Amino acid sequence: MVERACVESIAQHEGQQVTIKGWLYNKTDKGKLQFLLVRDGTGIIQAVVLEDDVPAQTFEAAQMATQESSIIVSGTVRADERAPGGYELAVTELEVVQLAEPYPITPKEHGVSFLMDHRHLWLRSPRQQAILKIRAEVIRACRDYFDSNGFTLVDTPILTPAACEGTSTLFETDYFGESAYLAQSGQLYSEASIAALGKVYCFGPTFRAEKSKTRRHLLEFWMVEPEMAYADLDDCMHLAEEFVAYIVQSVLKNRKAQLELLGRDTTPLERVEPPFPRMTYDEAVEILHSKGLDFQWGDDFGAPDETALAEEFERPVLVNRYPTQVKAFYMEPDPERPELSLSVDCLAPEGYGEIIGGGQRIADRDLLLQRIEEHDLPAQAFQWYLDLRRYGSTPHSGFGLGIERTVAWICGLEHIRETIPFPRMLYRIYP
Amino acid sequence: MVERACVESIAQHEGQQVTIKGWLYNKTDKGKLQFLLVRDGTGIIQAVVLEDDVPAQTFEAAQMATQESSIIVSGTVRADERAPGGYELAVTELEVVQLAEPYPITPKEHGVSFLMDHRHLWLRSPRQQAILKIRAEVIRACRDYFDSNGFTLVDTPILTPAACEGTSTLFETDYFGESAYLAQSGQLYSEASIAALGKVYCFGPTFRAEKSKTRRHLLEFWMVEPEMAYADLDDCMHLAEEFVAYIVQSVLKNRKAQLELLGRDTTPLERVEPPFPRMTYDEAVEILHSKGLDFQWGDDFGAPDETALAEEFERPVLVNRYPTQVKAFYMEPDPERPELSLSVDCLAPEGYGEIIGGGQRIADRDLLLQRIEEHDLPAQAFQWYLDLRRYGSTPHSGFGLGIERTVAWICGLEHIRETIPFPRMLYRIYP
Repeated sequence: MVERACVESIAQHEGQQVTIKGWLYNKTDKGKLQFLLVRDGTGIIQAVVLEDDVPAQTFEAAQMATQESSIIVSGTVRADERAPGGYELAVTELEVVQLAEPYPITPKEHGVSFLMDHRHLWLRSPRQQAILKIRAEVIRACRDYFDSNGFTLVDTPILTPAACEGTSTLFETDYFGESAYLAQSGQLYSEASIAALGKVYCFGPTFRAEKSKTRRHLLEFWMVEPEMAYADLDDCMHLAEEFVAYIVQSVLKNRKAQLELLGRDTTPLERVEPPFPRMTYDEAVEILHSKGLDFQWGDDFGAPDETALAEEFERPVLVNRYPTQVKAFYMEPDPERPELSLSVDCLAPEGYGEIIGGGQRIADRDLLLQRIEEHDLPAQAFQWYLDLRRYGSTPHSGFGLGIERTVAWICGLEHIRETIPFPRMLYRIYP
Repeated sequence: MVERACVESIAQHEGQQVTIKGWLYNKTDKGKLQFLLVRDGTGIIQAVVLEDDVPAQTFEAAQMATQESSIIVSGTVRADERAPGGYELAVTELEVVQLAEPYPITPKEHGVSFLMDHRHLWLRSPRQQAILKIRAEVIRACRDYFDSNGFTLVDTPILTPAACEGTSTLFETDYFGESAYLAQSGQLYSEASIAALGKVYCFGPTFRAEKSKTRRHLLEFWMVEPEMAYADLDDCMHLAEEFVAYIVQSVLKNRKAQLELLGRDTTPLERVEPPFPRMTYDEAVEILHSKGLDFQWGDDFGAPDETALAEEFERPVLVNRYPTQVKAFYMEPDPERPELSLSVDCLAPEGYGEIIGGGQRIADRDLLLQRIEEHDLPAQAFQWYLDLRRYGSTPHSGFGLGIERTVAWICGLEHIRETIPFPRMLYRIYP
């Protein structure tokens, strides 16, 4: 029985006889010599089949094998400078496990709609594999950061009774006769958990039934949300910059090959170190005006505004103290200027826009109740949330980081649809 | 400015002046001496306020502070054998941040319904904190195991178009004019991802709109699901035992204090090492009959059957090769006895029942299509899933482990409702 090996660690097997189980990625037919590119999910290796070295049946199998057929190849690993990856396999045995039908994704250019319809196959392309591996690393880094810094994971519910920010962008479902909504955030539940655990984070899918079609929006996306008791806006900004830098540095360290495959210029990523530049919303508005943009104080920034602001800096920038009117009902007002909120957004460089939104939450029950009423939210559904201000309320803050936007930025992608295995967008729920 | 410290690492600060920010857990009034038990999410420490040592105002604040008030205490850390935890704080300053109203959860016994209505506060009790910390460790261990063993995380979609196992137990939502359902599993999508990445896992919330009220069921629960290309039932069972043992050993190592607080006898947990005993469904039926249970070959095991089977062993047991009729449509038949499926369940000891279900999936397109038709499933919605058998199909297998059942078992809990911060059960969606 020959030992099974992964392409990723093939160098450890130089000179040995190994078996690789994978798929035929590409083939070059040189008559008596077949060069098979075999991929196994960890990498691609060239498998060389020489007619004189193998039984006739094996050579025929190599000749017949089609793109994406599942194949098992055994042979000797040898170093070869000319081979992609530096090693090749001198094949002695080959088995076609399943002969693939003509594969729909060919080297020619395909339209986006075609690729999206074939997302279950498109994932196999080296570019999509690289993005998925970077995504997994981003998520690993997020969890690692919080687990190592005193935060406890709390899984907040997806099915929620209250419409936290109005029902217009919520997916609704019947819950045994009641209405339930898919959560847009776990924050309110995290706020309950901090009184038990001090520092927590939740990490799960979130949903927004928005009828918008932009390169930055998905209807289902993943968000990681830390929340801290006894923490103000400054603590929140400090956490944000440490956290974002940790993610980027982890990807640079552990996913170098994938960034290279994507052709990502890593120079701007290498600059992502704390501290990040900070500016107030007021200062941001001044910058926009100085650049000739027509922006009204009191509005929220659009994508072009965010790009214009981020251009001013080489690192992500922390824009803080937005007007209360553009932020959610639970934002703590700035004690010096109550028309402002103790909020912060982190804007990624290179035009990738907002990746973090957060800030300090209202600690006072009366003010919170007033805001709930001003926003026409059902106070009854928020009784438990108001309770948190009756029993040991503290100044507290936190934020949410969108995984897909972060992955798009780190990978340098045009469109967010490639950052998640099976994107959910307007009119797109298949496969 | 006095350094802020956590109770968890208070030993490092012996003799030093520190500040602790937390909540008043309990208080003993000895006249000129107030013993405050202060918890901060990492632990509980006794803070001693002596009337003669502090300003009158500070002493009054200590006297007035109510249960669960948020308080900041500063003072000197000193070792004291009599103090719970071995250290206490000789208080020099005390600030009540928010004076809590009379706290609804008192040391007297409360009914389950009352506690569930106050779940946002109940989480603060030491027992609930311990469970949440063990849950977080279980999840950390799951991810760590797969990340360290060549698996890539893929986040499979929650909103899905097809009703994978019939619509009767699905939560449905409107998706811009189409019907979408909340996923009961990410497996089908993981099967697509293995052809790209070899070994993958998904980990997210799953949903079952079941009208059942048992101590083992939640409507929203978390599941981790590994899937491997080129892997048969034996590989699947091997992975299951290694994985479950890793989780249990991680909790024993890293959450000893919490297991102790729960009064968990760890002897049965310490025995959870691979290999696990294995038996076929047929052998299991024989055991049930030998124990006098009335069980019909071809039925699925109920909770009492699972308990009776698990009693026979000191470790979790892997029951394999269930009749095809009790398993999902995608199960690979046993080539030697096609009425059986290459399936496996892992039953936890001590009556905790099934924590894992999985097995080998059908690799052949024609057989899969036949099963889809036999199960009256919409073939159109499964085109992409059938595609996986047209382009490089491989023998492949995987399983799903339910987080909440695993946490219930490891913690030794009566009911699954305590294993998740905000349980979703029949008629229970608040808070």
